[in-house]
Amino acid sequence: MIASASPLIPITSVLPQPLPSVLALTKIEISLGGGRYQNCLKEIRSRACDVEDTEKGIKIEKKDWQKLHLHIASFNNFPTAAGLASSAAGFACLVFSLAKLMNLKENQSQLSAIARQGSGSACRSLFGGFVKWILGKEGNGSDSLAVQLVDEEHWNDLVIIIAVVSSRQKETSSTTGMRESVETSLLLQHRAKEVVPKRIVQMEEAIQNHDFSSFAQLTCADSNQFHAVCLDTSPPIFYMNDTSHRIISYVERWNRSVGSPQVAYTFDAGPNAVLIARNRKIATELLQRLLFFFPPNSETDLNSYVLGDKSILRDAGIDGMKDIEALPLPPEINNISAQKYSGDVNYFICTRPGGGPVLLSDDSKALLNPKSGLPKEA
Amino acid sequence: MIASASPLIPITSVLPQPLPSVLALTKIEISLGGGRYQNCLKEIRSRACDVEDTEKGIKIEKKDWQKLHLHIASFNNFPTAAGLASSAAGFACLVFSLAKLMNLKENQSQLSAIARQGSGSACRSLFGGFVKWILGKEGNGSDSLAVQLVDEEHWNDLVIIIAVVSSRQKETSSTTGMRESVETSLLLQHRAKEVVPKRIVQMEEAIQNHDFSSFAQLTCADSNQFHAVCLDTSPPIFYMNDTSHRIISYVERWNRSVGSPQVAYTFDAGPNAVLIARNRKIATELLQRLLFFFPPNSETDLNSYVLGDKSILRDAGIDGMKDIEALPLPPEINNISAQKYSGDVNYFICTRPGGGPVLLSDDSKALLNPKSGLPKEA
Repeated sequence: MIASASPLIPITSVLPQPLPSVLALTKIEISLGGGRYQNCLKEIRSRACDVEDTEKGIKIEKKDWQKLHLHIASFNNFPTAAGLASSAAGFACLVFSLAKLMNLKENQSQLSAIARQGSGSACRSLFGGFVKWILGKEGNGSDSLAVQLVDEEHWNDLVIIIAVVSSRQKETSSTTGMRESVETSLLLQHRAKEVVPKRIVQMEEAIQNHDFSSFAQLTCADSNQFHAVCLDTSPPIFYMNDTSHRIISYVERWNRSVGSPQVAYTFDAGPNAVLIARNRKIATELLQRLLFFFPPNSETDLNSYVLGDKSILRDAGIDGMKDIEALPLPPEINNISAQKYSGDVNYFICTRPGGGPVLLSDDSKALLNPKSGLPKEA
Repeated sequence: MIASASPLIPITSVLPQPLPSVLALTKIEISLGGGRYQNCLKEIRSRACDVEDTEKGIKIEKKDWQKLHLHIASFNNFPTAAGLASSAAGFACLVFSLAKLMNLKENQSQLSAIARQGSGSACRSLFGGFVKWILGKEGNGSDSLAVQLVDEEHWNDLVIIIAVVSSRQKETSSTTGMRESVETSLLLQHRAKEVVPKRIVQMEEAIQNHDFSSFAQLTCADSNQFHAVCLDTSPPIFYMNDTSHRIISYVERWNRSVGSPQVAYTFDAGPNAVLIARNRKIATELLQRLLFFFPPNSETDLNSYVLGDKSILRDAGIDGMKDIEALPLPPEINNISAQKYSGDVNYFICTRPGGGPVLLSDDSKALLNPKSGLPKEA
């Protein structure tokens, strides 16, 4: 899912989808006492409605929701706190699930405004396809919400490959970083006032027209400008590292050698590269290039090095380490800069723009026991 | 020597001084046919005057300079093309030497305008101490020149330590990078119009008042903003690498732990850190910290790892590898982030703000044979 948004994040972000399950399993009990959770819970409770399920013999009146307690189980298949917006998926899933449970009448955009109070980016995860985050004008943020531009079928050529460069906890949380940028960056105001509003309009056009060249140019330039503002913050924030820089340089060189963009890159609040290929053929060539420069460590299994849609790996003709070793030098690269960086990427995720959150009707997929309400034993 | 200048470079740069010798030795013959050299040579020739040295029996008339040929020998003790403004020192030395030889009547600022045509930063290397580069208003750059703010005695507490992070040829030459920033960065205009003019005024005040806190705050913020504009360029320019980022993080953490800036950092068009300590005591503590995090490789001799003013090394109580190994963890660092990066710094240079170019009267120091005019045999 791709979204366009505020000056404090790159115009294009790929956000993990909430898993297609209202409730899922975790082994760690965490507190929901924090302000971000409590804001969401308060907003949802205040909008709860009567619920009646005659089949199951359940009847809950609106006023009773204030007194009821819930077991919430959650499972995340994305690296946490690595700058891949894992919390966005979590909050979107939480808000969506509770809204279904408590029979809220609000539409997805109205729910997105609630999710935004848990994690800014979460408002965009309430939809699939391409999503726009509208900042709104109210001081309290009540009109800051997401709308879907087009669904995931509109531009279904695109293929996404994420290079997870480091799963270590990042040093600056994105929330702290944003606050410090607002307080200290002299370039942020200019970006917010002059640059982003124009780019948002251009980006919507590019998406409507399947104009990959404009889409890629805007995506890359805006990712770089977001990180420029991070650098202009005091103390400066470095989300990208040498591996991120290398990936950008390879993509830029490839795009220039072809004469038009084949791959777009964008980096959120972390070193991981989100690479968007214009189609499946280019994605296959991209994966070959990535594996040429960043082969797995000798102790890493290929199966756990390329995750997600493994069919791209098969299209690339790669079945094992010997295929990676046999990959040719990309033609746009001269021999001098053909150094390989084994171990600098933890793993790759192959995926595509996907759908939004889904309510499952199949109890067997639930992670809470429908009788006891407690987490199922793993 | 420290200088403040254009939006295309950090407000504070430490430039290498031309060696105190008009002529020096190199083993490689290079062409002066390039436009940068020819511009300088043309400007100087057109201003040449009569020269008469009755003692040596030399008499050259103004018009004869057009016909005469010269042997020029040059020696540079700084790493070349590593973003340490080595070409600035070279051009300043060339212009200064030829001006002396051809008896030009122009003052140092007027000569700086000529040197600027060879290498922008070169205009600042015509003076010692603190120098300001005035951009000028003329389209042809004829009024873009340097003036000395104060000489090297004005603020003689300052000590400079340069961490040479990489001596490899940089990928983007600073001249190409500047042109691409002007053409593509949307943040550069804002920096040039709104940010730099105010900072120049504040910087002059800080220097006049020996106000190290303001000096350091401006120096660091402006270095970071310069690199932010590089990142906002298409394709993005990365001069700093992970080692540069680490050095910034250590300095920022130390400054914050003390509560006021002890050390300023600035990075030119390369990964090398130029660190300015508020006084000698702080410089000693800085060198200890740098050697703690970036100890030399086992095969590197300490004597070739800390260059320049080695008395700071002695003050730091470091006489050999065992002293480096015994350095304590800096109190502002917690154990988790105390990783050491042996080999990530090539060497350190300890120095201070210095004087400008000097004409040597001692023939024995010349690198051309005064009789034959040819380079001396090494």
